Amino acid sequence: MAEITGKNFIGNTASAKGTKTFQATNPFNGGLLPGIFYLITEEEIAAVAVKATEAFKIYQQKTAEEKAVFLETIADEITALGDDLINRAAAESGLPPARLTGERGRTTGQLKLFAKLLREGSWVDARIDTAIPDRQPLPKPDLRHMLIPLGPVMVFGASNFPFAYSAAGGDTASALAAGCPVIVKAHPSHPGTDEMVSQAIISAAKKTNMPDGIYSMVFSNEETAIKLVTNPAVKAIGFTGSRKGGMAIFNAAVNRAEPIPVYAEMSAVNPVILMPGAVAANGAGIANAFAASVTMGVGQFCTNPGLVFMVDDENAKTFLNTLSAVIKSIAPATMLSKNICANYNAGVDKLKTLATLSAQSDAVADVHKTEAVPCIFTVAQNDFIANKNLSNEVFGPASLIVLCKNTEEIYEALQNAEGQLTATVHANADDEKSLQPIIDLMKEKAGRIVFGGFPTGVEVCDSMVHGGPFPSTTDSRSTSVGSAAILRFVRPVAYQNFPQHLLPDALKNNNPLKILRMVNGEYKRDAID
Amino acid sequence: MAEITGKNFIGNTASAKGTKTFQATNPFNGGLLPGIFYLITEEEIAAVAVKATEAFKIYQQKTAEEKAVFLETIADEITALGDDLINRAAAESGLPPARLTGERGRTTGQLKLFAKLLREGSWVDARIDTAIPDRQPLPKPDLRHMLIPLGPVMVFGASNFPFAYSAAGGDTASALAAGCPVIVKAHPSHPGTDEMVSQAIISAAKKTNMPDGIYSMVFSNEETAIKLVTNPAVKAIGFTGSRKGGMAIFNAAVNRAEPIPVYAEMSAVNPVILMPGAVAANGAGIANAFAASVTMGVGQFCTNPGLVFMVDDENAKTFLNTLSAVIKSIAPATMLSKNICANYNAGVDKLKTLATLSAQSDAVADVHKTEAVPCIFTVAQNDFIANKNLSNEVFGPASLIVLCKNTEEIYEALQNAEGQLTATVHANADDEKSLQPIIDLMKEKAGRIVFGGFPTGVEVCDSMVHGGPFPSTTDSRSTSVGSAAILRFVRPVAYQNFPQHLLPDALKNNNPLKILRMVNGEYKRDAID
Repeated sequence: MAEITGKNFIGNTASAKGTKTFQATNPFNGGLLPGIFYLITEEEIAAVAVKATEAFKIYQQKTAEEKAVFLETIADEITALGDDLINRAAAESGLPPARLTGERGRTTGQLKLFAKLLREGSWVDARIDTAIPDRQPLPKPDLRHMLIPLGPVMVFGASNFPFAYSAAGGDTASALAAGCPVIVKAHPSHPGTDEMVSQAIISAAKKTNMPDGIYSMVFSNEETAIKLVTNPAVKAIGFTGSRKGGMAIFNAAVNRAEPIPVYAEMSAVNPVILMPGAVAANGAGIANAFAASVTMGVGQFCTNPGLVFMVDDENAKTFLNTLSAVIKSIAPATMLSKNICANYNAGVDKLKTLATLSAQSDAVADVHKTEAVPCIFTVAQNDFIANKNLSNEVFGPASLIVLCKNTEEIYEALQNAEGQLTATVHANADDEKSLQPIIDLMKEKAGRIVFGGFPTGVEVCDSMVHGGPFPSTTDSRSTSVGSAAILRFVRPVAYQNFPQHLLPDALKNNNPLKILRMVNGEYKRDAID
Repeated sequence: MAEITGKNFIGNTASAKGTKTFQATNPFNGGLLPGIFYLITEEEIAAVAVKATEAFKIYQQKTAEEKAVFLETIADEITALGDDLINRAAAESGLPPARLTGERGRTTGQLKLFAKLLREGSWVDARIDTAIPDRQPLPKPDLRHMLIPLGPVMVFGASNFPFAYSAAGGDTASALAAGCPVIVKAHPSHPGTDEMVSQAIISAAKKTNMPDGIYSMVFSNEETAIKLVTNPAVKAIGFTGSRKGGMAIFNAAVNRAEPIPVYAEMSAVNPVILMPGAVAANGAGIANAFAASVTMGVGQFCTNPGLVFMVDDENAKTFLNTLSAVIKSIAPATMLSKNICANYNAGVDKLKTLATLSAQSDAVADVHKTEAVPCIFTVAQNDFIANKNLSNEVFGPASLIVLCKNTEEIYEALQNAEGQLTATVHANADDEKSLQPIIDLMKEKAGRIVFGGFPTGVEVCDSMVHGGPFPSTTDSRSTSVGSAAILRFVRPVAYQNFPQHLLPDALKNNNPLKILRMVNGEYKRDAID
């Protein structure tokens, strides 16, 4: 078994110069887990920055194939950690081993997706306009465009996905694929998991001859983390977590002497619109599926549906009755941490004062096991509009049903919502007449819009958008899941009149990488004569 | 002739509710030009924001063909203004009519480039992953990705390009192409030109049945402009101008309740590296071409080469002698405004205290004609490194030659430079050995790198990058010139499990737009069975 040392990784070097330490807690019983973790010092932070900068220069010389093998080797090394990793992650996160096994598969799968993207190679957006020396009144120069990496990227691991959004998660995979060294700030609720995964990444880096400093991992408090955010070596940030945490990072990053991009995925209530036709046709079926989505993973997904808009008619009553019955039957379950559970309970208590508790689990939560009780609330549309607090995310297995007089009120309620990761609609042929404006509005409000399903479950593929307008993220122009996530960590550069031997392969006339390029306005894989 | 009214355009409505007015000044003689321009009021600003938001909803329903015709009609309407427009722009800017005629052609050409891009249509980055309902352990949903517009965009016109970076310039053209309404803040040094061009845009909007509010134009002071920057209706900013102005806008925009993207192109000194082999082979030729580049347009280009790094050998002396002779022979010429000329003179005076004046025009500037004297300075590399002020942009026909002991010192000097729009190198076969690290560093520092030419002259094409690392811009992930500029004003959205008839055309199975799409990982124009 891989030993947990509690040390930071300054590139390949384990380091523990600090005196402040912490331990991880098991949410199942509140007990401390083995492993003493050392908070990084400012001196160590400086060393991390230097190594990342040096590694950036060397990593840029690596071919796409070499980077792809690096990513695949990380996946293999993570898999090789076997049950030790699953067990540690389960103990630190309270998540069931089966879920964590699935999440590990997603994590290694997404490393492999980026490896495939690198091998195919067209993502660099190569564009070539060849010269016209005799053009009047001025000659046209030869211009060639491609995307290049920004530089070292700092990644903040998330509590709710110890693998997929943490040390070797989507931010790390996409940044490494883009050509950027990565510095991970481990999440304090699963430091042992992050260390084990980091050991796997460093082992892969050594095996594939990647430069020391291509990957670093730090244990730090908020204050020291901000020191790294504002270090000139860091050129972009990836973050998944709370709005408060995300905005602190964003504000620090944009107020640097050199402002840098921040991709913070912060919060969402993921509205679900139930059109009256769909509820009439299948209210009970929707209620069952909705209850499963709200309580899946104890409601601890960024895409958890925390808000429902529906018309308050007879069918709505059937829907609510079914939903109540299902929610009552769902047992309380352990949340990720004591802190998250306390926040959930505070959010539920607040909702109790602002809305009507429509149903909750019949069973009582065991506080020693950090358990949360699933809850459903209802509120009238005019009360929802009047009180902004009702739109706030309550992270956990709770949802608020907003009862509207008609579909116009649904539209108005949705218009009142902030930016979202997702918006979902259930509709059938009877709803067609009033549907299009609602879909247009969903598109304006969210990064992903779902028809007839639920937003939980984020497919890792080329077409995924896991992002959205503020405050769901700080940068709606991006996705943090799927192959397009690589575009967050690059910028375009143009080469003018360069001789062939000094051009990167992607831009050479003979197209040695066989990538798709835009040549004089036409997409082609052909060589240029 | 189109009448200059001095009024703001709140969409299609001319409006002058304010009491504060100003006039334009002719830099050729310091005299006031006809036309009284009304500064916009806060009440009018609010009306602009409302109209832009309403227009956004309608404009999104327009087809790519309809938007393309709109852009082409703008070009036609601008051309139809004929010599009246050229004459007014010349009087307001001091730029020669021939140059302005060329710039008008570039401006109408770039509107047509975006029309072509819209008709081709593949720029929306359509990605489709089809469903696999029987996938284990979970079904794979149908996911479809495309780029959609952000919303109303505010554009700050630039002083140095009254057409190409102003009312109907690259920012406006790319934002309208992306699907965003535009609000232009006219530049106070050429308000009449901006009004005439705005009349052309509004005329085109009416002729092509575009919604009222698709385009607005305001005369405003800095304080009121910031009120518009922070208006919730505005979703992105385009700016070309000074670092001070750009940073004021950036800071206001990122500190809004909802932070928004700012594409501010602010300043650059555009280093030119003259490798010893190239200077030995053709020092006099390079000197002649360099002098032409530095003094072109009285040095008032964002890409003006303000900094040269070269090895201080015998051939450098030949280069400097030729350069001095040419610079002496170039007559002083009228700058864009009294303010810009005063700043230039202050910058030159400062350089005189920090570096050696190597040559200047033999003729004396006529201050009544707002004339600037071309100047060349030299400084030793160690002094350049020691004094950050020597890297500051001096906007106008001046350049600083940094004399280095060897190519290692050139590398060190370049490493010390801030982010740049361009970096240029002249090299021949004798320079190959030390060239690659310098090219790698140029790529790290600049958005466009030029081999064997000069950076002035920004080709409008698919491959252009007019952008670069901070502080040349506030967002290095973009270009403000060329077709890729459209990507600044969009964000991705994903449709999950949507029925065909509710999908946008770009994502329908039968691919009615015949665009290139990524379908299950492969680029194709085929329909999906």
